[in-house]
Amino acid sequence: MSASITAPDFDFSRYVRDRARLVNDALDRYTPTDSVHPTVLHAAMRYSLFAGGKRIRPLLCIASAEALGGTTEDVLPTACALEMVHTFSLIHDDLPAIDDDDYRRGLLTSHKKFGEAIAILAGDALHTLAFTTIAMHQQAAQPTVIIEVIRRLALASGTLGMVGGQVDDIASEGKAISAEVLRSIHARKTGALLNAAIETGALLANASEADLVSLQRFGEQVGLAFQIVDDILDVTSDDATLGKPTGSDEKNDKATYPKLFGLEASIGFAREASDAAIAAIRSFGPAAEPLRCFARFIVDREK
Amino acid sequence: MSASITAPDFDFSRYVRDRARLVNDALDRYTPTDSVHPTVLHAAMRYSLFAGGKRIRPLLCIASAEALGGTTEDVLPTACALEMVHTFSLIHDDLPAIDDDDYRRGLLTSHKKFGEAIAILAGDALHTLAFTTIAMHQQAAQPTVIIEVIRRLALASGTLGMVGGQVDDIASEGKAISAEVLRSIHARKTGALLNAAIETGALLANASEADLVSLQRFGEQVGLAFQIVDDILDVTSDDATLGKPTGSDEKNDKATYPKLFGLEASIGFAREASDAAIAAIRSFGPAAEPLRCFARFIVDREK
Repeated sequence: MSASITAPDFDFSRYVRDRARLVNDALDRYTPTDSVHPTVLHAAMRYSLFAGGKRIRPLLCIASAEALGGTTEDVLPTACALEMVHTFSLIHDDLPAIDDDDYRRGLLTSHKKFGEAIAILAGDALHTLAFTTIAMHQQAAQPTVIIEVIRRLALASGTLGMVGGQVDDIASEGKAISAEVLRSIHARKTGALLNAAIETGALLANASEADLVSLQRFGEQVGLAFQIVDDILDVTSDDATLGKPTGSDEKNDKATYPKLFGLEASIGFAREASDAAIAAIRSFGPAAEPLRCFARFIVDREK
Repeated sequence: MSASITAPDFDFSRYVRDRARLVNDALDRYTPTDSVHPTVLHAAMRYSLFAGGKRIRPLLCIASAEALGGTTEDVLPTACALEMVHTFSLIHDDLPAIDDDDYRRGLLTSHKKFGEAIAILAGDALHTLAFTTIAMHQQAAQPTVIIEVIRRLALASGTLGMVGGQVDDIASEGKAISAEVLRSIHARKTGALLNAAIETGALLANASEADLVSLQRFGEQVGLAFQIVDDILDVTSDDATLGKPTGSDEKNDKATYPKLFGLEASIGFAREASDAAIAAIRSFGPAAEPLRCFARFIVDREK
């Protein structure tokens, strides 16, 4: 194992801070300001876009491209589009008719702040803006690759991905479901978009078929670890740290890993998934260090 | 003026029937069946997609391409994407938090049939499916043209188009607004997507810049006529003919053309807009006859 793979001197916190700043600046550029009409709609979009999200999807997209020799600039519009889709899904999931949440990341949810009508439409507008952003600004690639990026983002967001997973998550409330069904819900509700982040970053950096397969395996395992840890934090964290009410899965009678397997076993599963992710990109060089750090961070995070 | 421009023997009803069948068949192919999981989501998407819509946007897209020598097959995925975006917007607009409508086209609205959560998510899924459909199936064009088609569809659906117009429409309820503001709301809420239908059809048929300008002018005027007639029908039609409750604009205290100008003047404005649309494509040959018939049909329709 080369020294670069463990890379003790790689400053991941700084990496995340620097890249997140570039993402935030780009999100600001790509989103109409709230001085532009209709101001309330643009204000609502910005409220949720800049509500302190960790930018995990954009950062994974960037880290994936960098692992193959690409740059942040090469993928920035697509990275931002992923965050817009993620944000639209949070706004709609929080609505009274779905999860009925009043707080997210320590702030009022969109419908609590702007009313339900504007929250629905702000979600729709962010959804559209994701595709506008790629079609207008994603240029550092062949047009056929850009169309493929749009295809993967749309598929990951749709009925076989994020939205489909959300439907099954709602349907599972109050029911006893198997570990297999739980995993399938997570793979679609959360995993599909995380995977799309990694895939689109790789495609925009001209990934070989072999690289893409390794990165897809990485993405599956990181997505799994991510969701298990989300379930764990809902049990172990407190409201202030998490920025939203803990215990909401219990309240909504949702199937979770801790509920099915207990806390200790769930922590073990999360670590296994993180290790499997890192193993999937074993053959990658030092440029993949940010990806490896992500796989560790996702298990060790506190919110 | 050549005989073909008046084309007394052109069978517009048959044209619409034939093209609408091709659109319906393609919508059926591009949308997952309701035997595919999650079945309730796919059932809800299909319920609204196949609820008797007139397919005006797909047909305008096709007619626009044909006016420039293109074929239905050349534009079918984009034509269907336009209908998916239109349908998603109807589902969300009907929600209790927005227009709170129980019926549309004589059928229960999506949230009345499937519940609010599924209606919100079915709308989101159709929105995504529009982009999936273009990215996966729209092939009879240069990749750069396909990206431009995606850009125009997304812009027309977003904050400067459809969703922005809807926000202003809600904000105008119960307020006195000027004719200028009313026209601006309509131009975005309804006009932007009608224009996108015409523009994308033209782009996919390799329109010259001059053709595109003429067709944009056509689209603006047709869009205006369409919305004025919508307002008129809400006053003059009956529930059974229209398939939804008439008088809903009055109920919601919405600004409309009949309210601002009276019924007679509004009918005059609609005819003027239709005539201006036809004049904008005066130089086009017999292949533009379906477009001309559309401009007339939009004023003469009864629902």
